[in-house]
Amino acid sequence: MASVRRLVLDVLKPHDPPLVDFTDQLSRVDGVAGATCTLVELDREVQNVEVTLEGENLDIGAVEETIDELGGTVHSIDLVACGDRLVTPQRPPRDA
Amino acid sequence: MASVRRLVLDVLKPHDPPLVDFTDQLSRVDGVAGATCTLVELDREVQNVEVTLEGENLDIGAVEETIDELGGTVHSIDLVACGDRLVTPQRPPRDA
Amino acid sequence: MASVRRLVLDVLKPHDPPLVDFTDQLSRVDGVAGATCTLVELDREVQNVEVTLEGENLDIGAVEETIDELGGTVHSIDLVACGDRLVTPQRPPRDA
Amino acid sequence: MASVRRLVLDVLKPHDPPLVDFTDQLSRVDGVAGATCTLVELDREVQNVEVTLEGENLDIGAVEETIDELGGTVHSIDLVACGDRLVTPQRPPRDA
Amino acid sequence: MASVRRLVLDVLKPHDPPLVDFTDQLSRVDGVAGATCTLVELDREVQNVEVTLEGENLDIGAVEETIDELGGTVHSIDLVACGDRLVTPQRPPRDA
Amino acid sequence: MASVRRLVLDVLKPHDPPLVDFTDQLSRVDGVAGATCTLVELDREVQNVEVTLEGENLDIGAVEETIDELGGTVHSIDLVACGDRLVTPQRPPRDA
Amino acid sequence: MASVRRLVLDVLKPHDPPLVDFTDQLSRVDGVAGATCTLVELDREVQNVEVTLEGENLDIGAVEETIDELGGTVHSIDLVACGDRLVTPQRPPRDA
Repeated sequence: MASVRRLVLDVLKPHDPPLVDFTDQLSRVDGVAGATCTLVELDREVQNVEVTLEGENLDIGAVEETIDELGGTVHSIDLVACGDRLVTPQRPPRDA
Repeated sequence: MASVRRLVLDVLKPHDPPLVDFTDQLSRVDGVAGATCTLVELDREVQNVEVTLEGENLDIGAVEETIDELGGTVHSIDLVACGDRLVTPQRPPRDA
Repeated sequence: MASVRRLVLDVLKPHDPPLVDFTDQLSRVDGVAGATCTLVELDREVQNVEVTLEGENLDIGAVEETIDELGGTVHSIDLVACGDRLVTPQRPPRDA
Repeated sequence: MASVRRLVLDVLKPHDPPLVDFTDQLSRVDGVAGATCTLVELDREVQNVEVTLEGENLDIGAVEETIDELGGTVHSIDLVACGDRLVTPQRPPRDA
Repeated sequence: MASVRRLVLDVLKPHDPPLVDFTDQLSRVDGVAGATCTLVELDREVQNVEVTLEGENLDIGAVEETIDELGGTVHSIDLVACGDRLVTPQRPPRDA
Repeated sequence: MASVRRLVLDVLKPHDPPLVDFTDQLSRVDGVAGATCTLVELDREVQNVEVTLEGENLDIGAVEETIDELGGTVHSIDLVACGDRLVTPQRPPRDA
Repeated sequence: MASVRRLVLDVLKPHDPPLVDFTDQLSRVDGVAGATCTLVELDREVQNVEVTLEGENLDIGAVEETIDELGGTVHSIDLVACGDRLVTPQRPPRDA
């Protein structure tokens, strides 16, 4: 596969590791130029997090493996941008 | 036909292939410079996806053929931009 | 008449020809530099489409003739911009 | 009077002349660099139109005379910008 | 006093002089680089107008005197910006 | 203390001195490059004003002293930006 | 850990030290290029503050230690951006 440039993932994760370590680990995955996690909702057990990744050649397999190793679950893939040009969608990804 | 520069499609697709592969395949269609898919809604059987494609000379036939091969259905074509200049519409495409 | 630079039209069209062909034909009218059609509403018989055209010297007569030949009807002309300078209105065109 | 740079007028006009001719005529008034008309509301008899004019030295008298000759009526003057600098207001003009 | 750079005033004025003359006169006050008036509300007797003035060294006294001479009343001063740098507020001025 | 770059204050002040003099005085405090006051609410006795100050090295003590001398009261400090870089917050300051 | 570039924290703090000192101290933590605090809510005992920090290499441990020393509590970490590229999320951080 080639040239996945942006991914937005809806993720459930436990409180540990904390969000800073979680985001740091994602930013270290091969092909990731930057990773931003925002907290959408939290309860006693889990955090619902929106993960946005950018790079020239994102590897969804490696990303999901890392999330899995950190105890998280990808609830849905909400946006995927591929190709030579980064295309901005007409609508933002769905409400979690 | 000449110079279709942007297309926004309202698509229903099965969960498999996943959205990353689906978007990657669309970005490989002749004339597509970039493809972005956002998840609008999902249930047990299908995903409702907004597909935005940009290029200098998009071929709707080839795009629809690829969506078809991937098990998807074009529910509606919500925006088409043609010509030498990419014209931004006054209103965003309709709510799916 | 001189220097019509932008037109926004509220158009009803049958499902055939499809929106890609319809937009492509409009972008080929003399004086049109770019044409974008967005789907506003659709039912079994017709599509309600917002047509935005830009150019240095748009010819409304030729545009209406082409829409007519494609089986469409101009329900209303919602925006017209004329002159040496393209003036942005303070309000977007009316809700269809 | 000197240096009126932008005018927004709330105008009622009959259906004839159509909006393209109406806007074209306004763009030809002395001092007008660009004219944009947007349809706010229409009924069987009249169109309610927002007229936005820009130039270095707009002449409201000549503008009103032209609107009058075209069968229209200026219902209200909603924005006036004068001076060496074009100042953007903190609020858009009132709802018609 | 030094360096008042922007003023927003909430003004009541009679219908005469009309808004174009009123704005033109304000743009001629010493220190005013540009004046924009927007109609907020109108009834049979008066117009409620938002006046925005910009310059390097606005003189509120001279501005109020001119408004007074034109038959208007400053209902409130809604924004004042002073200093070497024009600071944009975090909130727009209050609703009239 | 070093390098306070932006302050937003929620202030109550009497009608006298008027807002232009009040803002002018604040813009003259040491370290203030620009001051903007917007009227949030007014009643018979007091004006509720949002004060936004920018500079390279704002001195909150001197600012509060000036507000005090002008008869005003700082109801709350709603935003503070410090450091070499001016960081824009993700949310605007709270509603007064 | 490497290259945490932006942090948004939801913090509860006592009224003393005041917000200016609190923000100033945060801007002095190693790796912080800029710190902005906005008041979200306040009652008699505490202030609820949104803290936004930017830098090339933010140290969450040192940040939390400083907040702790100043009597504050990190209620939640609402956004973390890591990597070579600062990625803007598709949604703002959750409502506090």
